[in-house]
Amino acid sequence: MTKLRILSGMRPTGKMHLGHLVGALENWVQLQDDYDCFYMVADWHALMSEYQNDTYLIRKYAYDNVIDWISAGIDPKRSTVFMQSDVPEHVELHMILSTITPIGWLERCPTYKEQMVELKDKDLSTYAFLGYPVLQASDILLYKANLVPVGEDQIPHLELTREIARRLNYLFSVKNNNPPLVPEPEAKLTRFPRLLGLDRRKMSKSYENAIHLSDSPQEIAAKVQMMFTDPSRLKKTDPGHPAECNVYAYYKVFADRLTDTLSQDCHQAKIGCTDCKKNLADLLINIVKPIRDKRAEIEKDSHYIKKVLSLGAEKAREVAGKTISEIHKAVFG
Amino acid sequence: MTKLRILSGMRPTGKMHLGHLVGALENWVQLQDDYDCFYMVADWHALMSEYQNDTYLIRKYAYDNVIDWISAGIDPKRSTVFMQSDVPEHVELHMILSTITPIGWLERCPTYKEQMVELKDKDLSTYAFLGYPVLQASDILLYKANLVPVGEDQIPHLELTREIARRLNYLFSVKNNNPPLVPEPEAKLTRFPRLLGLDRRKMSKSYENAIHLSDSPQEIAAKVQMMFTDPSRLKKTDPGHPAECNVYAYYKVFADRLTDTLSQDCHQAKIGCTDCKKNLADLLINIVKPIRDKRAEIEKDSHYIKKVLSLGAEKAREVAGKTISEIHKAVFG
Repeated sequence: MTKLRILSGMRPTGKMHLGHLVGALENWVQLQDDYDCFYMVADWHALMSEYQNDTYLIRKYAYDNVIDWISAGIDPKRSTVFMQSDVPEHVELHMILSTITPIGWLERCPTYKEQMVELKDKDLSTYAFLGYPVLQASDILLYKANLVPVGEDQIPHLELTREIARRLNYLFSVKNNNPPLVPEPEAKLTRFPRLLGLDRRKMSKSYENAIHLSDSPQEIAAKVQMMFTDPSRLKKTDPGHPAECNVYAYYKVFADRLTDTLSQDCHQAKIGCTDCKKNLADLLINIVKPIRDKRAEIEKDSHYIKKVLSLGAEKAREVAGKTISEIHKAVFG
Repeated sequence: MTKLRILSGMRPTGKMHLGHLVGALENWVQLQDDYDCFYMVADWHALMSEYQNDTYLIRKYAYDNVIDWISAGIDPKRSTVFMQSDVPEHVELHMILSTITPIGWLERCPTYKEQMVELKDKDLSTYAFLGYPVLQASDILLYKANLVPVGEDQIPHLELTREIARRLNYLFSVKNNNPPLVPEPEAKLTRFPRLLGLDRRKMSKSYENAIHLSDSPQEIAAKVQMMFTDPSRLKKTDPGHPAECNVYAYYKVFADRLTDTLSQDCHQAKIGCTDCKKNLADLLINIVKPIRDKRAEIEKDSHYIKKVLSLGAEKAREVAGKTISEIHKAVFG
């Protein structure tokens, strides 16, 4: 039986951190066992938000991120790991889908205005950013992906992809009594744990409040040491309130099995924040260490990632080229 | 001295008619003497308005139009004649320019809302149609065209292309003290005569009120015979009013040297409408005949246009590929 196909991607706009690990990457690694996975470095999507900054960094982060993907367990032999802009079929399908996508669908997309507000330090009132979901639809439909792993907040985007797929199928094929050109991809809803930044704000490059997958044990220890704990616990003998504590929240994500005991000990002031943070640091160091070790190994071969992406692009273009020529034929004859 | 470069294009949405001949094609033919001309079949632009119709016709009209271009004097050895979708660099540059083009520039473009009203039988409220000027900018900047032949009404579009060029240059090159990536194209303002349809409405495919460059002498004679003349001239002995007469307007465009005499004769009822139209028909038949003869010759080789477009695409991609890799390097490093 052929495996169902999955497409997912990340925007190369910064170094990978623990939020990416638990919010996507660990899931990606697991999916490889059961699905035909296409994992994409979404550099066109990155350009949409970074065009006013140093855009050279996009490529730099792209290579760096792929090192982390592989270090965390993505196997480029099993999965297709590629860079969006290496596969020109994305922009071609984007053009075709642009011609059939009503502006109203895009303006009504609930994440559109949210993002504009959230990234208010960037000027996102561009033509491309309005069309963000059209490019996403191209990414997905180009590989005829059956499933897209999404968190709850991304469901509207995927619904838009499904609507665009239906319209593409109808206008250029079903209308003429031919079979649909692409499947309507389904959401593979995944509940990702929410990990806040070290300072309890949203984890973000611009806040410098993240532990990176490439951080050294010393860096991790120093970062965890700076984390805020329960603000009402002034002395070690005061009882703590784990529910108010970001360090505890990290335990919940990374070592849930420890949290019953930890919660009790904190409430009863049996453990102080310094020790608790030291333990968390050790725990995170142990999680990051194998990734970091693998990174060091990968970095010995300075061409390795280039080769991975070049092979990945080849594999991706094989599928994408087939889809685009089917669609091209359906549109232009 | 290298020649200045010109880019112009037509949307393949119907057969070529006399309006195209005097409104663009004759000018294109002349420009070949002094400029390095790139003439493009704008099939992506056509898809923007035709996506709900039989889109197979786009390619059919594309081939048919190029036959007329060459029959009217476009020399594919001197000029680069190509199909937009054969040159994937257009959609790639379109993606890059999309990321830097503010939506406001597009919404404010005066021709945008006009077109929506004018083509009200089509649903043009799509994402691609809003971005029409972004694709136009890609078409022009990809070839580093110095000049674009435009009528007065298209000046706002070209001004938008110039603004997009400035922003591209600034963000990805000038900001970092490097030279501009592309020239800002200038308008080559051309006063094109306005030719109404046979029924005095706008000449349009949907009104079937045009004389095509591929029409036979019989077809032309029959069409001219049906033209309305001065509605207040009921009998041949009534004095006519050339200013009110569409047939006279055609003389103005195609045989201005005859109009002084004709105007007098009409005013003085020395010539009747039937004769006047017969003379116009002969005149138009003589204009169309050499084009039609050339067409018959071209159609003997059923592969000729395919070969022209394939060679044209090769020439176009040589230039476009160079530009896109310069821009790609400036953006991504």
